[in-house]
Amino acid sequence: MSEPADRVSEPVDIVGPFTAWTDRESLAEQMIPLVGALYRRRNVVTTIHGRRLPGRSANDLLKLHRFARHLDGVELDPSEIAPVLEGLTRLDLGPAVIDLADLNERFRAQEEQGLDDFLRRELAEVVGVGAFAVPPTDVVLFGFGRIGRLLARILVSRAGGASGLRLRAIVVRGSGSDDIVKRASLLRRDSVHGPFDGTIVVDEAAQTITANGTVIALVHADDPGQVDYASLGISDAILVDNTGKWRDRVGLERHLLNRGIRRVLLTAPGKGDIPNVVHGVNTNDIGDEAIVAAASCTTNAVTPVLAAIDEEFGVEHGHIETVHSFTNDQNLTDNFHPEGRRGRSAVLNLVLAETGAAKAVAKAYPALAGKLTGNAIRVPTPDVSIAVLTLRLERPVTRDELNSFLRGVSLRSGLHRQVDYVDSPEIVSSDQLGARKAGVVDGRATIADGTPSVVVYVWYDNEYGYSRQVVRVLESMTGVRISSYPARVPSAPQPRGLLSAAGSAPS
Amino acid sequence: MSEPADRVSEPVDIVGPFTAWTDRESLAEQMIPLVGALYRRRNVVTTIHGRRLPGRSANDLLKLHRFARHLDGVELDPSEIAPVLEGLTRLDLGPAVIDLADLNERFRAQEEQGLDDFLRRELAEVVGVGAFAVPPTDVVLFGFGRIGRLLARILVSRAGGASGLRLRAIVVRGSGSDDIVKRASLLRRDSVHGPFDGTIVVDEAAQTITANGTVIALVHADDPGQVDYASLGISDAILVDNTGKWRDRVGLERHLLNRGIRRVLLTAPGKGDIPNVVHGVNTNDIGDEAIVAAASCTTNAVTPVLAAIDEEFGVEHGHIETVHSFTNDQNLTDNFHPEGRRGRSAVLNLVLAETGAAKAVAKAYPALAGKLTGNAIRVPTPDVSIAVLTLRLERPVTRDELNSFLRGVSLRSGLHRQVDYVDSPEIVSSDQLGARKAGVVDGRATIADGTPSVVVYVWYDNEYGYSRQVVRVLESMTGVRISSYPARVPSAPQPRGLLSAAGSAPS
Amino acid sequence: MSEPADRVSEPVDIVGPFTAWTDRESLAEQMIPLVGALYRRRNVVTTIHGRRLPGRSANDLLKLHRFARHLDGVELDPSEIAPVLEGLTRLDLGPAVIDLADLNERFRAQEEQGLDDFLRRELAEVVGVGAFAVPPTDVVLFGFGRIGRLLARILVSRAGGASGLRLRAIVVRGSGSDDIVKRASLLRRDSVHGPFDGTIVVDEAAQTITANGTVIALVHADDPGQVDYASLGISDAILVDNTGKWRDRVGLERHLLNRGIRRVLLTAPGKGDIPNVVHGVNTNDIGDEAIVAAASCTTNAVTPVLAAIDEEFGVEHGHIETVHSFTNDQNLTDNFHPEGRRGRSAVLNLVLAETGAAKAVAKAYPALAGKLTGNAIRVPTPDVSIAVLTLRLERPVTRDELNSFLRGVSLRSGLHRQVDYVDSPEIVSSDQLGARKAGVVDGRATIADGTPSVVVYVWYDNEYGYSRQVVRVLESMTGVRISSYPARVPSAPQPRGLLSAAGSAPS
Amino acid sequence: MSEPADRVSEPVDIVGPFTAWTDRESLAEQMIPLVGALYRRRNVVTTIHGRRLPGRSANDLLKLHRFARHLDGVELDPSEIAPVLEGLTRLDLGPAVIDLADLNERFRAQEEQGLDDFLRRELAEVVGVGAFAVPPTDVVLFGFGRIGRLLARILVSRAGGASGLRLRAIVVRGSGSDDIVKRASLLRRDSVHGPFDGTIVVDEAAQTITANGTVIALVHADDPGQVDYASLGISDAILVDNTGKWRDRVGLERHLLNRGIRRVLLTAPGKGDIPNVVHGVNTNDIGDEAIVAAASCTTNAVTPVLAAIDEEFGVEHGHIETVHSFTNDQNLTDNFHPEGRRGRSAVLNLVLAETGAAKAVAKAYPALAGKLTGNAIRVPTPDVSIAVLTLRLERPVTRDELNSFLRGVSLRSGLHRQVDYVDSPEIVSSDQLGARKAGVVDGRATIADGTPSVVVYVWYDNEYGYSRQVVRVLESMTGVRISSYPARVPSAPQPRGLLSAAGSAPS
Repeated sequence: MSEPADRVSEPVDIVGPFTAWTDRESLAEQMIPLVGALYRRRNVVTTIHGRRLPGRSANDLLKLHRFARHLDGVELDPSEIAPVLEGLTRLDLGPAVIDLADLNERFRAQEEQGLDDFLRRELAEVVGVGAFAVPPTDVVLFGFGRIGRLLARILVSRAGGASGLRLRAIVVRGSGSDDIVKRASLLRRDSVHGPFDGTIVVDEAAQTITANGTVIALVHADDPGQVDYASLGISDAILVDNTGKWRDRVGLERHLLNRGIRRVLLTAPGKGDIPNVVHGVNTNDIGDEAIVAAASCTTNAVTPVLAAIDEEFGVEHGHIETVHSFTNDQNLTDNFHPEGRRGRSAVLNLVLAETGAAKAVAKAYPALAGKLTGNAIRVPTPDVSIAVLTLRLERPVTRDELNSFLRGVSLRSGLHRQVDYVDSPEIVSSDQLGARKAGVVDGRATIADGTPSVVVYVWYDNEYGYSRQVVRVLESMTGVRISSYPARVPSAPQPRGLLSAAGSAPS
Repeated sequence: MSEPADRVSEPVDIVGPFTAWTDRESLAEQMIPLVGALYRRRNVVTTIHGRRLPGRSANDLLKLHRFARHLDGVELDPSEIAPVLEGLTRLDLGPAVIDLADLNERFRAQEEQGLDDFLRRELAEVVGVGAFAVPPTDVVLFGFGRIGRLLARILVSRAGGASGLRLRAIVVRGSGSDDIVKRASLLRRDSVHGPFDGTIVVDEAAQTITANGTVIALVHADDPGQVDYASLGISDAILVDNTGKWRDRVGLERHLLNRGIRRVLLTAPGKGDIPNVVHGVNTNDIGDEAIVAAASCTTNAVTPVLAAIDEEFGVEHGHIETVHSFTNDQNLTDNFHPEGRRGRSAVLNLVLAETGAAKAVAKAYPALAGKLTGNAIRVPTPDVSIAVLTLRLERPVTRDELNSFLRGVSLRSGLHRQVDYVDSPEIVSSDQLGARKAGVVDGRATIADGTPSVVVYVWYDNEYGYSRQVVRVLESMTGVRISSYPARVPSAPQPRGLLSAAGSAPS
Repeated sequence: MSEPADRVSEPVDIVGPFTAWTDRESLAEQMIPLVGALYRRRNVVTTIHGRRLPGRSANDLLKLHRFARHLDGVELDPSEIAPVLEGLTRLDLGPAVIDLADLNERFRAQEEQGLDDFLRRELAEVVGVGAFAVPPTDVVLFGFGRIGRLLARILVSRAGGASGLRLRAIVVRGSGSDDIVKRASLLRRDSVHGPFDGTIVVDEAAQTITANGTVIALVHADDPGQVDYASLGISDAILVDNTGKWRDRVGLERHLLNRGIRRVLLTAPGKGDIPNVVHGVNTNDIGDEAIVAAASCTTNAVTPVLAAIDEEFGVEHGHIETVHSFTNDQNLTDNFHPEGRRGRSAVLNLVLAETGAAKAVAKAYPALAGKLTGNAIRVPTPDVSIAVLTLRLERPVTRDELNSFLRGVSLRSGLHRQVDYVDSPEIVSSDQLGARKAGVVDGRATIADGTPSVVVYVWYDNEYGYSRQVVRVLESMTGVRISSYPARVPSAPQPRGLLSAAGSAPS
Repeated sequence: MSEPADRVSEPVDIVGPFTAWTDRESLAEQMIPLVGALYRRRNVVTTIHGRRLPGRSANDLLKLHRFARHLDGVELDPSEIAPVLEGLTRLDLGPAVIDLADLNERFRAQEEQGLDDFLRRELAEVVGVGAFAVPPTDVVLFGFGRIGRLLARILVSRAGGASGLRLRAIVVRGSGSDDIVKRASLLRRDSVHGPFDGTIVVDEAAQTITANGTVIALVHADDPGQVDYASLGISDAILVDNTGKWRDRVGLERHLLNRGIRRVLLTAPGKGDIPNVVHGVNTNDIGDEAIVAAASCTTNAVTPVLAAIDEEFGVEHGHIETVHSFTNDQNLTDNFHPEGRRGRSAVLNLVLAETGAAKAVAKAYPALAGKLTGNAIRVPTPDVSIAVLTLRLERPVTRDELNSFLRGVSLRSGLHRQVDYVDSPEIVSSDQLGARKAGVVDGRATIADGTPSVVVYVWYDNEYGYSRQVVRVLESMTGVRISSYPARVPSAPQPRGLLSAAGSAPS
């Protein structure tokens, strides 16, 4: 036996921690139906430090309680949070996003009022307004590849509440008779993202897929121009084009010729004057545009980080090199491909690929126009990528200063839903699978030594993280604005611009 | 638009199914704290058709309700099941495994009694006996590789209830000062099995890892002989040797020289007279043996299927070819390896590897002694394998007959915890990641055409499915026997032997 | 220092072996221009134990000399072989295949004649007949995927001699202006098979690719029906359809409507009454058929081995399970695919795939009709597969007997160009990359224990080995028959059927 | 048929190009024994534009003739080169490196002399000096992993001539009785680099491996201190330590305690005051040092490129991000590893890994000290990496200017053996497998737009390219200097420093 000399030799208490855990677990389990009921009946999304609670398991809830130590240095105590949640159920609430951690902090910080009075005062705006003020917006997925299927999963998981989004139809290219079974199967099982969380029922006669109760029509069409959405009961819908076939206004406008479609969202970089929206950065560009593009996964991953750094330190020049998982636009084995190098086997090679990400960043965040170059190296992993941002700043910065700033952006800023931050010595790409934010800064990797030259590493789930950004754009396109409570009072001197916009929506 | 002509054109009802789903979801959420409370306070494991409920999410519970259609052709209705569960909470139950689906079926089949009276009668044996009759057994994991870490995850997830197993220590080889952080990190994040479900806290001073409240001591030792378990408060423990270094009695007995260790379980094939136990097949061989081996992953995957087929059809001769994911005993790139071919890069090659699985089957199920040959082909996937069983039976069989039999084994037989059955046109290996049973028959692949020559394909998660079998052996080694309710009354003519032993424990 | 005790301690001679090597190397280098001149000027293909010499490097030639020990127990001595080769250059030879090893053996076995007289007698039939008796046959490759490009490489490397095949054109689907550069690039560099052996020159104006002097026209066409081959100077050509789009007579006959095309060879299993030819097994089925199919790679790999075993031992029943590298008909990431399971990511999964190989074997070798079943498991390697033949023979056989027989088939039999045999403890799939024969028996893996139940493992380069078989069919389709010298006199009791047909052509 | 309109319709001449090719092929074949004889008997290494000819096939020679167009715009004509080569064989030459292309160019540029007179004058220094002036230096490989085995392959291929290096022994860790068979097998077959080019014979009694006539003793030792090299007849040897276990002077000096070992070369970055030599950059640091290190593969790949750019443009600051294939110091599946992140599965992840390459560059090229940062991302490919050099230069540069400069460095400079340049639209990593130079600039990827900020991409075969650099260091350590002819007369204004040192040795 070769133990470290300093091992504490007295017997460790094993009963106390375990009892403490089961007590917390019990509280977390009791929270689940309450969270669910508020979500379904009241359109109330509860959160903990900005992270949504509906649909989470008991262990997930306890992880969120523990995560809180990154903000305040201490874990949240479910025996404090659970009563706050319970208090909410006693109010006649209308649609809102309510952060339990923030509410609890404010409640503990005052002494005048009891819990119910406190809650009634804090949430006065949404008490008694009625639950279902929000009529849902129909959504059609045109194309059902990897992004389309992930969007379907997210939309179905959000169907229960105030999201305002109702997935109605999926349009795919014509195919054989058992097509719907195959399409449903691809939704049900995914080699990368795992099984669908819930149940899927196929009705071949009606040509519908019902996923967790959401009834989705499967429509076959090779052409965007002539689908009779209205006959499916779809109206004023947002169509999400996942095919990438048409990226200019002329091509995408053909969707608008159909009765039933009101707006189009392209899940690829749009050409010409189509606004390319990176949610959190230029969300305002959505406005009333009939056609909006959600830019690329890489653009979504890096723009928020670059914008934050630029606002704080100023970026003189930068190069974005993204080491990117392969995607379906490459080949399995060497074969013809119209674009350079992408024809060569994606599984066996590092493949240099041009990327428009550098220019696309400037479309969403014009302050960086002309300052960035970019390139991609496609590598043999199926998902999750990392962008290497080699930057020359306007002023010198230390590693601690830069990391501390980026960590703060991830926790409390107008970009907190887009930027995450991880500080762990063993993180690799597969750990970022399923990351909900657009980009995750790897603090351990940051290079900065008191000069203006720095390197920042940003992980991103180029499939899932991007899909979450797309859904955020979709939600913004509905025009529904749900208020968040309690209103955030910044605890630190207010930063400029994007960072200041205290995030109102849950990630 | 090129729709199939037979599309039902009348508008589909989208509100009804969605409301039905949210109603069910609401019921499922309400079941969670009840399932948890029964588990933690009463040592009652609730199940649905043999599948454990504790720890499941609401969507998981609804999937189990839907899965029930494989048995009865109809889904379970949570509005029937929830009241049964609620009824249980009103009883003063002691440790038991209680199947809600079976109870409900029996309740609906009678008319005399109200629910509470019915439950009180059915569960009479365990009403009023008191909850914590079962003192837990200490477990030590010697070696913390892939199997060791999965065992830790399973044991931690089971710590809350009547499992009778309490993970106390992990023994690893000596290393540097930040060793415990790295070990905890490997438990927390897994490139194949994903993140740990819960929270992990490291105490470097105490050298403990606390996972969901379970306090686990990390001990460094290069040699099995001299660890002072007693000083850690460990007594009468079962030590699980995951190193594979010692596979004979002499080597493994050294663990028993330590105070605190009472029995040893080897997670590899044991040599000599050590019983090799495939749980469900020769569980009885465990007896009071001080040293037990859990055989190999492949042996666990195929033996139950082969035993079932042999009992029903008789096996004259067979060959087992397993197409197996690579494991850590191979090399990343070509390099020296004492065993043939395993030195060559596991990532770039199909590698023929001898396997003792054919002989090992006969150790657990002697009726097949001398009748089987076997071989393995290691391929570049990180987990999940498939065994191809090419068999000559004693009588001809059709594909339907064989599949129907195997499906039955998976649903209602003494091997229902070991054998699963899947019938889906799109199943591939990654879908079996996390499979809880030892082997999953792929019914669509079965080859049989009315002759005695058949081929059966068995998927298995060679890491996780095997680890579940190991935990089953561990549970059997504790000697604790928890009864199942309601006692199963077979609905079909009783098969012979193993198949008849109506499974009493949840999978 | 821990040396084995039995190390021979006296200093090892290092000069002798090295001098011997450089002497042999010098001889081998001198053989190269002689081999080349005979090939180019005389249409004489020299071989060593059936293996072609033209194009080989000096080291390759020495490896062939050493390989000879598998037949006779001793290596060939280049100082014996070189004079024989030199002797050939002194004769006025016409087209022939001449085996230097066999000639040498016969020469050494007699004493009457000097070398020149001996050679003149042995080769009397082809002395003085003139060199260019064989007019070449034009070949068109329709489709330029992996098989098409490998065929081009082989045809170009054979262009210099008596193959009778002249690659004239490649037909691909229409594309952009830089298409020819990309097509040439794919021919020049291959992620699996490495760089093209020689030089490639693109003429964009003439739309030709010149590879090692062979001028190949690139033609764009989406449809087989209307290519004006005649205007390219192509006549009476054999068109090789590599697209797999049309597999029945009606579809393939459209090629024959074009002026310039005389026959069609399909590099996939043909449907209906199209003969499926496995070269070496049913070569005679080619006859004058206008349309011939070359069956699949798996069929080509296993049929010769199965036929040989059946002729010798009789096959009662068998199952073919092939563990197969992915191919371009699968998907890189999960996506829609009309065939079952093939839509799931080929890189991340074991994918069960139906294969027609079992039935196809019987088309080429009818004696096995109704006796075989088959299945494929696609795995994440880019090339090289292994077929597991689980057989029940008509009589018991030992492992030595079976292996010895298969080894003999590979060395001296009518199937020696199709069947190879390897006996090495460290062989893995990547070692078989570039294997020239259709299938390679892995003797170390053979399972047989004196019963009629055996398992035989057959490696195959499913791309390259198959392409070599296709070229053999092509050569047979030209109708040119080049005699081999010396005529083989079997050294052992003559086996039946296929095996007896002493191979006349080089592998 | 959809042909481009501008297709040249007149029939293409197919006979002329083919005849031209076979004529050239014939000449190339005839060159092979001449190249070999000069190499073996005269220690004359012939080259074409700096690329070695010995051991090349006829097609390789023709590729070199064609490559020449990158320098002069036209291919070399073998009908000019062959006579020059033949001329050399008529002289009584001593050890030299003789470039046939340069000789030919000079010969054609004068008119006074006939070929023989010209050659005699140009090579006057080495005519009549005798062939075997160079006694070979013994080499011992300590450690036989991937680098060790590649070094063995290169040394064996060089054994025939004036390299001055004679591989005598391989030292590996103790193992079982069939160890030598396995070691030889790993040398014979490589999953990445393919089969050994030649023959390997194992003598188990003598414990020797004879590779292409080179007799190599296999020695087992766990410790560097006590191998009796002298008893194997080894003296004054250079030992190459490939284990990486000892990287400081104290550790490596233990090799020098053995009789028979005179100097040590470490194939890893050396610590402390051990000179880290990047051949071509700081070759002079070798001097008489008893212990020398060859730095890392990445350092060798990037230092020559960085040094060249710095000499020409001045480097203000730079970041090196290398996207690197996995290596054996990572794990196949997640497991413990003392270094951060490297424990996680190398196959499934992008793994951030610290690299000392940035600092190591400055050790070999001090002008860049303090100006570089660096990092590595390990990705799932088995070999070949790419370094991304993001640089801020002292002056603006256009893309054409930068590429033209780098191309020139690769063709004519003191770094021409270290730096290669490729300009092709379809290059991917697998194409660089087997690259002989330390780094290959991918000109198509270069980013520069007239500002001082540029990005340069450098491919490297991190196994083979590095091994070639190690052999160059070894050759320099022998102290043998073989002159090159004709002495290069720079055709352009002479660059500074490293670039000016007209390369005297073949690559």
